[in-house]
Amino acid sequence: MSADRATADRALAMVGLGRMGASMLRRLARARIPVCGYDVAEGARAALADEPNVTTADSLAGAVAQLRPPRAVWVMLPAGAITNQAIDAIAALLSPGDVILDGGNADYHDTVRQAAALEARGLHFIDVGVSGGVWGLTEGYGLMFGGPQAAVAPLLPLFQALAPAPDRGWVHCGPSGSGHYAKMVHNGIEYGAMQAYAEGFALLHAKQEFALDVAAIAEAWRHGTVVRSWLLDLAAGALRADPLMDKVAPVVADSGEGRWTVREGLDLGVPLPVTAAALNVRLASQGRGDYGARFLARLRNAFGGHAVKPQS
Amino acid sequence: MSADRATADRALAMVGLGRMGASMLRRLARARIPVCGYDVAEGARAALADEPNVTTADSLAGAVAQLRPPRAVWVMLPAGAITNQAIDAIAALLSPGDVILDGGNADYHDTVRQAAALEARGLHFIDVGVSGGVWGLTEGYGLMFGGPQAAVAPLLPLFQALAPAPDRGWVHCGPSGSGHYAKMVHNGIEYGAMQAYAEGFALLHAKQEFALDVAAIAEAWRHGTVVRSWLLDLAAGALRADPLMDKVAPVVADSGEGRWTVREGLDLGVPLPVTAAALNVRLASQGRGDYGARFLARLRNAFGGHAVKPQS
Repeated sequence: MSADRATADRALAMVGLGRMGASMLRRLARARIPVCGYDVAEGARAALADEPNVTTADSLAGAVAQLRPPRAVWVMLPAGAITNQAIDAIAALLSPGDVILDGGNADYHDTVRQAAALEARGLHFIDVGVSGGVWGLTEGYGLMFGGPQAAVAPLLPLFQALAPAPDRGWVHCGPSGSGHYAKMVHNGIEYGAMQAYAEGFALLHAKQEFALDVAAIAEAWRHGTVVRSWLLDLAAGALRADPLMDKVAPVVADSGEGRWTVREGLDLGVPLPVTAAALNVRLASQGRGDYGARFLARLRNAFGGHAVKPQS
Repeated sequence: MSADRATADRALAMVGLGRMGASMLRRLARARIPVCGYDVAEGARAALADEPNVTTADSLAGAVAQLRPPRAVWVMLPAGAITNQAIDAIAALLSPGDVILDGGNADYHDTVRQAAALEARGLHFIDVGVSGGVWGLTEGYGLMFGGPQAAVAPLLPLFQALAPAPDRGWVHCGPSGSGHYAKMVHNGIEYGAMQAYAEGFALLHAKQEFALDVAAIAEAWRHGTVVRSWLLDLAAGALRADPLMDKVAPVVADSGEGRWTVREGLDLGVPLPVTAAALNVRLASQGRGDYGARFLARLRNAFGGHAVKPQS
């Protein structure tokens, strides 16, 4: 649809039309919910031109102008400064009773502060953890959100349309911050579970005397076993396409939630040995353990005369 | 059916009619495969009396006598001495070309030795890792087996009947020992993945300021999220029934596979930080870390005068 429609009939404005935001907007639109999208990148807006029930706007103000009251603006941008700046700009365009949703993976401490500041201005804030990645458009998104019931209730039809089904895959966790808290914990579990699979498949791969078809074992494990899971489904697909994986650098990024989860364990005094170990594997894979490894090599050399391998 | 039928028409004898063996026998029988069961406990045999396509025998020899050649005897007993004694007794009743299957969670090193000893006598040996627990009767069992192709091929219809579907959930891993090896690794993954969930739910439970409904979050996570899995399905059911879990002693058994997996990592030089951490949690929960904790308390007292709490 054209970007210049005058009627303020949109149920939601999505700010940030990247991989996640654009797909979520499409899923809402395909549930016949009229929505509007805004992104600083013109190409991201143009990509939605042919989607029924979607309009786009070329400014935040233009997007907000298309909303029916109470207006709801969902920010789907990288967490941190970019999201915070967008929220400030959106808040300046809204009126008391309107709602801002943040679907990024924010640190829940920031979320609690953000929500208090906006509530003081009469605006509602809902923090939403969104899981499902690139598969969400077709399979639905797992949603966990926090915020006041008065703000959440009118938006339930939107959450139900985004979720895998109206009656499942979403949960109103509690007050502001609890949605991002739950998402942080979800991602912490993800770190540990992914590493558990990685270690198991590494053992299968390393057992040369059995010449195991690792991809075939992964595929078989998808059915009937205790370890069957969506992550295993993905692993089986990845191993089928590339069982050796030797063209992939052994470097794993971490994007915050793992560190936050381990820090939360320290704050609450809850031991998290597996989550911490999984995070440490990622940090080491990034070379962040190299100084320590050099130190150990030097120390072995110092007391035992063991050879030190020069840096290549 | 009666235990005294004379015709040697049974496709398999199951030795050990406990929770797993009896359910597997029922699943085979319900696929219209004629099978025979033996257990030292008369009650275990009697429990199968009304199952069509199942006969029972009151001795190993009686069970073997009901088999059509080449005869196949599946041992489904606790790993170790009990299984080894049963295999010795069965081998004495069989002829060259017959097959013994071991569905227990044996140490694969023992399996490799066992297979070589039996092959030297002309008997085939197939080691089968069986996953799925008490749900296998209805959902099918995940099966991973090792052994010579000549012995495996005639038994494929049985594996296909036990599996969730004829074309999935089973894999012939490789030579003897590889089935138990794969099952060991499977269970090692299980240790790490279970602990990842345990840590996440512990963080949700501990976050009193949000008063989270842990069971509701578990239920929502089952759909659309990255951490959805069969283990999470079980966790959601357990939390629904008993969210506080405060009547359960915080003691977790370990039954061998976790220790074997970690030992294998050491043997192959493959780092397994998450699997080892998950195993260590179980060992500590059994009180096996208590001496170390006492030592730490004493040492803090010695250098800092910190109070030592007396043993209650």
